[in-house]
Amino acid sequence: MTDDAVYDVAGIGNAIVDVISREDDGFIDRLAMTKGAMTLVDSAQSAAIYENMGQSLEQSGGSAGNTLAGLASFGGKGLFIGKIDDDQLGDIFSHDIRAIGVDFETPRMSNGVGTGCCLVVVTPDAQRTMNTYLGVAIELSPDDVPEAQIKASAVTYMEGYLWDPPKAKEAFLKATDIAHGVGRKVSISLSDPFCVERHRSEFLDLVDNQVDILFANEDEIMALYETASFEDAVAAVRGRCELAALTRSEKGSLLVTKDETVEIAPVPVDKVIDTTGAGDQYAAGLLYGLTHGAGLAESGRMASLAAAEVISHLGARPATSLKQLLE
Amino acid sequence: MTDDAVYDVAGIGNAIVDVISREDDGFIDRLAMTKGAMTLVDSAQSAAIYENMGQSLEQSGGSAGNTLAGLASFGGKGLFIGKIDDDQLGDIFSHDIRAIGVDFETPRMSNGVGTGCCLVVVTPDAQRTMNTYLGVAIELSPDDVPEAQIKASAVTYMEGYLWDPPKAKEAFLKATDIAHGVGRKVSISLSDPFCVERHRSEFLDLVDNQVDILFANEDEIMALYETASFEDAVAAVRGRCELAALTRSEKGSLLVTKDETVEIAPVPVDKVIDTTGAGDQYAAGLLYGLTHGAGLAESGRMASLAAAEVISHLGARPATSLKQLLE
Repeated sequence: MTDDAVYDVAGIGNAIVDVISREDDGFIDRLAMTKGAMTLVDSAQSAAIYENMGQSLEQSGGSAGNTLAGLASFGGKGLFIGKIDDDQLGDIFSHDIRAIGVDFETPRMSNGVGTGCCLVVVTPDAQRTMNTYLGVAIELSPDDVPEAQIKASAVTYMEGYLWDPPKAKEAFLKATDIAHGVGRKVSISLSDPFCVERHRSEFLDLVDNQVDILFANEDEIMALYETASFEDAVAAVRGRCELAALTRSEKGSLLVTKDETVEIAPVPVDKVIDTTGAGDQYAAGLLYGLTHGAGLAESGRMASLAAAEVISHLGARPATSLKQLLE
Repeated sequence: MTDDAVYDVAGIGNAIVDVISREDDGFIDRLAMTKGAMTLVDSAQSAAIYENMGQSLEQSGGSAGNTLAGLASFGGKGLFIGKIDDDQLGDIFSHDIRAIGVDFETPRMSNGVGTGCCLVVVTPDAQRTMNTYLGVAIELSPDDVPEAQIKASAVTYMEGYLWDPPKAKEAFLKATDIAHGVGRKVSISLSDPFCVERHRSEFLDLVDNQVDILFANEDEIMALYETASFEDAVAAVRGRCELAALTRSEKGSLLVTKDETVEIAPVPVDKVIDTTGAGDQYAAGLLYGLTHGAGLAESGRMASLAAAEVISHLGARPATSLKQLLE
């Protein structure tokens, strides 16, 4: 797919700094959180949850940002598009995405609401429960989509979470038009089953008409097609886009095209510490493979490798070089 | 030691947020850093180093802050005294120290220089090299020392790094007078061999006249007494304060009183990941033991346990409950 592309992947997403703490299940119950989900919260709710969280660590995150971090860790070249505020969390986000070799030029906006942050609660079962305050990320608009760079990107990748902030989906659609106008690929991750519930009809339309490569986990694809079984969801999505990459945690994943189904085995992990970012890194591996001439099975293996690495430690971005791991 | 004390330990230190990245040895050479040391940098130097650092993670730190975090993790009660700015890093520092159950009431100062931060570079040998921009931490003054709380603290503990900012040592001396005035103990960590070089004559005087419990590693104690061997340094410090706790990394540690030498074995670690905070956590364990009726050998074992925990992962504060680990 790369041919003349400058970027393997242009990722559009909410620019987010993760604030991670380990808590027991009682914490999830006490704060009436939906375990395993990403819930949007406002500034006051975010402050109230943070107040209750234990000692934390902070790391740049955001779904698409994490995917680009993974892509860069494999040695791929990415561009990130997302909105940060002119504050210390914005400095951290901006530093980190550039430090790993991803281009990031979206103008900052100083409106005082702050760079977005995600309060990530990791329970002893390694499950993550997320509460996101989008902050200035919701200001991402079509003006922030750089035409020349999108044209120069083999794949334009967007997180489904973008459907939450009102103007971001316009940015998404603009990018999609630009990319398809020059024969590039468009990819989306469904992000979260509740995100799918919020935007089902639009997502269904997107998959049919805009998306070439779809990423979804078992819960998300079943939520999208409102099926009772994974098998029914696979049947429902087949042929609706060029490729559907469907992940099933420890059961591995399925790459589904119109005529083909490639089963990808999971890469075993000694101990699962924190599942945050598993889907993001899976997407990173698959997109790296596909943009570097690998076939479906080989790209799927890279996807599983990246997912396995990230769930073996705290945080949603690779802690070791995926390029070295691959070698 | 606890008897009627409200706090086991009041810790006075530079309030610092750590910015941690993994780099190779070439990075240390290229940026002409002194490997393994803590170097003070100004705002511009800090920005230049950060610019060169890879993707980072942020975690509240500061030597005394880390020690109080360890103490709290054992179940002890601490008070932290240190200066933060009214910014996001200050929010993080303040949240984290309180979230682990440590009291922290020092008034913030909003002078725009920012909360202090320490750029921590961890090399593949697990060694940490630190570049600290003290920021607003240097504004800590005697006015910030709360008399009633110091009187109510079994031990007042201070990091040697406090000798770097000009007004902080006055705060230290005020706290020492208050503590000794009511028969409480005073403890200091020498922090870093270069810190000892900068303040040797004052540190020598302190150990002789103000300090009850001294923490130093091999390099620091040898720097203090300018001896060529560890044994000579042990002989030099013996009897100059009530207890000298001398750490030697994988060789364990020595607890030295006027008449006694207790050898403490290290607690074995599967794989050393990051030595940041080893000394801070050692101090946490020893002070927890001593303020909870444990003898020297038992307190030393707690110290080794806390140090072993913290070097087995990235970051300078415990990632698991030291209380549970002890049980």
